[in-house]
Amino acid sequence: MAAPSSLIALKKPIFLSFSPHNIFNTKPKTLILTTQLKTCSLVYSSSCTSINSSTTQPLVLNNKQEEKEEAEAEVEEVSLGSIWREVQGCNNWEGLLDPMNNHLRSEIIRYGEFAQACYDSFDFDPHSKYCGSCKYHPSDLFSNLDLNLHKGYTITRYLYATSNINLPNFFQRSKLSSIWSQHANWMGYIAVATDEEEVARLGRRDIVIAWRGTVTYLEWIYDLKDILCSANFGDDPSVKIELGFHDLYTKKEDSCKFSSFSAREQVLSEVKRLVEYYGQAGHEISITVTGHSLGAALALVSAYDIAELNLNHIPENNTKVPVTVFSFSGPRVGNLRFKERCEELDVKVLRVINVHDKVPSVPGIFANEKFQFQKYIEEATSFPWSYAHVGTELALDHKKSPFLKPTKDLGCAHNLEALLHLVDGYHGEEEGEEKKFCLVTKRDIALVNKSCDFLKSDYHVPPCWRQDENKGMVKTGDGRWVLPDRPRLEPHRPEDITHHLQKVLGTSNGEPKLLH
Amino acid sequence: MAAPSSLIALKKPIFLSFSPHNIFNTKPKTLILTTQLKTCSLVYSSSCTSINSSTTQPLVLNNKQEEKEEAEAEVEEVSLGSIWREVQGCNNWEGLLDPMNNHLRSEIIRYGEFAQACYDSFDFDPHSKYCGSCKYHPSDLFSNLDLNLHKGYTITRYLYATSNINLPNFFQRSKLSSIWSQHANWMGYIAVATDEEEVARLGRRDIVIAWRGTVTYLEWIYDLKDILCSANFGDDPSVKIELGFHDLYTKKEDSCKFSSFSAREQVLSEVKRLVEYYGQAGHEISITVTGHSLGAALALVSAYDIAELNLNHIPENNTKVPVTVFSFSGPRVGNLRFKERCEELDVKVLRVINVHDKVPSVPGIFANEKFQFQKYIEEATSFPWSYAHVGTELALDHKKSPFLKPTKDLGCAHNLEALLHLVDGYHGEEEGEEKKFCLVTKRDIALVNKSCDFLKSDYHVPPCWRQDENKGMVKTGDGRWVLPDRPRLEPHRPEDITHHLQKVLGTSNGEPKLLH
Repeated sequence: MAAPSSLIALKKPIFLSFSPHNIFNTKPKTLILTTQLKTCSLVYSSSCTSINSSTTQPLVLNNKQEEKEEAEAEVEEVSLGSIWREVQGCNNWEGLLDPMNNHLRSEIIRYGEFAQACYDSFDFDPHSKYCGSCKYHPSDLFSNLDLNLHKGYTITRYLYATSNINLPNFFQRSKLSSIWSQHANWMGYIAVATDEEEVARLGRRDIVIAWRGTVTYLEWIYDLKDILCSANFGDDPSVKIELGFHDLYTKKEDSCKFSSFSAREQVLSEVKRLVEYYGQAGHEISITVTGHSLGAALALVSAYDIAELNLNHIPENNTKVPVTVFSFSGPRVGNLRFKERCEELDVKVLRVINVHDKVPSVPGIFANEKFQFQKYIEEATSFPWSYAHVGTELALDHKKSPFLKPTKDLGCAHNLEALLHLVDGYHGEEEGEEKKFCLVTKRDIALVNKSCDFLKSDYHVPPCWRQDENKGMVKTGDGRWVLPDRPRLEPHRPEDITHHLQKVLGTSNGEPKLLH
Repeated sequence: MAAPSSLIALKKPIFLSFSPHNIFNTKPKTLILTTQLKTCSLVYSSSCTSINSSTTQPLVLNNKQEEKEEAEAEVEEVSLGSIWREVQGCNNWEGLLDPMNNHLRSEIIRYGEFAQACYDSFDFDPHSKYCGSCKYHPSDLFSNLDLNLHKGYTITRYLYATSNINLPNFFQRSKLSSIWSQHANWMGYIAVATDEEEVARLGRRDIVIAWRGTVTYLEWIYDLKDILCSANFGDDPSVKIELGFHDLYTKKEDSCKFSSFSAREQVLSEVKRLVEYYGQAGHEISITVTGHSLGAALALVSAYDIAELNLNHIPENNTKVPVTVFSFSGPRVGNLRFKERCEELDVKVLRVINVHDKVPSVPGIFANEKFQFQKYIEEATSFPWSYAHVGTELALDHKKSPFLKPTKDLGCAHNLEALLHLVDGYHGEEEGEEKKFCLVTKRDIALVNKSCDFLKSDYHVPPCWRQDENKGMVKTGDGRWVLPDRPRLEPHRPEDITHHLQKVLGTSNGEPKLLH
């Protein structure tokens, strides 16, 4: 654990109306202990004898009403809206991870769900003509996935990348000849908090960028060539990132309406537009970038890019919008210089990983941030395979969860839903050991088995249970089974993107200067 | 093809009110040709260029209204109700198979769907506590499967067998400890035509016995020991059937409410009850037994048993209820003496097979009905591995269907839905060759791919597309995903079965005399 266990003083101390102490400076241990006593009472029955008993329902034990009310009263004292800057990492999450702060816990899970939504809505079926696209219209994505917490957000742009780059195990391709796009894959989305209640709860107008990763374990990792190339987003050529990530982020395909702009251009133009729009209105804004696996790499690359191009600067009041990455099961992305540059730019990164997952150990197995002479070999010898993780690590261990099987399956260890389950039960460390695993939120443990076989069988949740009824086939009025056509996918409108892109990258002649 | 191509005179000629000729004796070739011209016009588009065009919809070409009406008028002349005895095989389907009679075609498909319903409603999921049972209540099975043609039937009994016999690859077992039954598997059902309109259309009160087979290809075949044992349903010990089928049909497990009666006892008591009930009322009755794969073996065994015990005799008018087996992809079941005994008892069997399927060639690879000295070796040497197919064969060839991939996959060749598709397009032979494949009914070709990968990809139907949404998991009011409890499964009530069983097998002391 990178974060020390000491509690830190906030830059802006919070003084609460009903209580003389604040959550960080006074009585924090008592408060959190109380909260934990209450929340840990959510336990699951792990045995069953009768077939008709509701064995999958949680049993709430020890819920003495008084304790509960006391705990709730205290939790409510500090709102997320009042400490959102700390939760977004302005102090590198010091003091919030050990013991784990419950606002931070909920926010990590919430941003994890933004990333998970990219998997749950992606059409993986090579027999579908929509393979490689998002199954839902942007306006319906969150409601189709039943993500209540995310309904306060509006998706303003879908992100696509060209599949004409050398990552054969990453892109999904349809086996059919007539498909929605020969060259593009859906890569995620940009959303902004638009519901005023949600904006008030969050304490700011949050812009979320969520990147899709890979579900198939590690295969795409073998595609990566571990070759570093200059990012070239700023002026320093010694800032380098892995070539595959760079290609995925910057390549485009002129002949395709969905990838005639690179993923990079799509992101930058939309962030520019949103920050300008809400910045002019004087709103407080945050930019939160999230992703799992390869999506975590893209999250870091795009967050760095935004900060490097100063898109998070609001000229009206000369302030900086905080840029935060919630990264899940991510690989290393760039060299030591890249890491240093991210820190200089104040890009805050919380890297949530499972210690049994192999993806965070690549690339850079031989030269990485743990190697004390990394700076020397990188600068003096231009060693080309030197990678460094960026940010604060939250390392979790699935063997601590009594809900999970002690499997050695690497797919399980890399699974995002399982990781969010671990966040839910994590409480920090004691004498170098993780404290007892104990669920805090009411997050459904069944979600762990959505696309893997990880939960103990006592919980009666089938493995890999998330699937569409009849793979999306529906019966027509005359009794035939067909894959229905979907609403037309909206490609990017050049007039929409170019305008903002010119503000970001443009030159006077209208040709963006930094296309890769 | 066992059936000759000559047309035969019916025992009871049918004289139609609107036409001086009947379908079999006069002008039959013209009639059928006209019908085929019309029905063959149902073709599918096999290419598509636009993503939004309805490429999976059938296109009807050449549908000149006059031709169509003429054909329809002629088809309507002979009703199923008036020729049902022939369609049920009273003349061993002579003259109905080549060219294929359209009533017979529809009836083969309809009975095949009764058998298919056993797969579509079976809970195969080892992670379900209901694994090995039927997913639906008897009253809802046909409507849940959207089988409109079968809604005229009422299921009166579910059939179970004990899994405590040596067929490990046949039975589905839950991995959970607390399950609906430790010892039983659902094996099929008995239904009777109760809708008066359907009874009128069929021309009789039809009792259907449908047996579940296996979806996993051939594995259960390896469990069969190829050992013959005396069936002992009648008095002749030389009538022998394969030991595994015999066990499956006759074994029981006293400690289990679902298999405390053997499958045999469940079938016999219910058939006795139904024949008695409708026979007393003077109804015309048929008994139709159907099944696919191992279910086809059980269909033949139970049909033979019913006839051997004379359960199809109606004492009130001293008539015999016809007993017919529509068998799909079935293996051999018993020895030559068994086959002869079935013929003596007038059990009519139509065996529909795909010539590329291996299941119909076992058991009895070395000594079977094709071996001219079979009778000698069976009677003189008591050769213990001599098997003979029973009844009339309808041999189809999936390579004749332009809709199917020329796969060598044995699972595809054994698939029931694919076989019904072949029935739909079969027209008989010409000079030893199958006539051109051409679909007649409006049966949806997408059904072929329900649980295999057999359709050409041009049709845009995903392989193995039939699946429950989220494997049956549903979201509760408080947002948790659970496998809901099902309505209580109704075990057999002893007072219900014993009464009828005594009439069939019973002695004066109430102990059935023929329990195995």
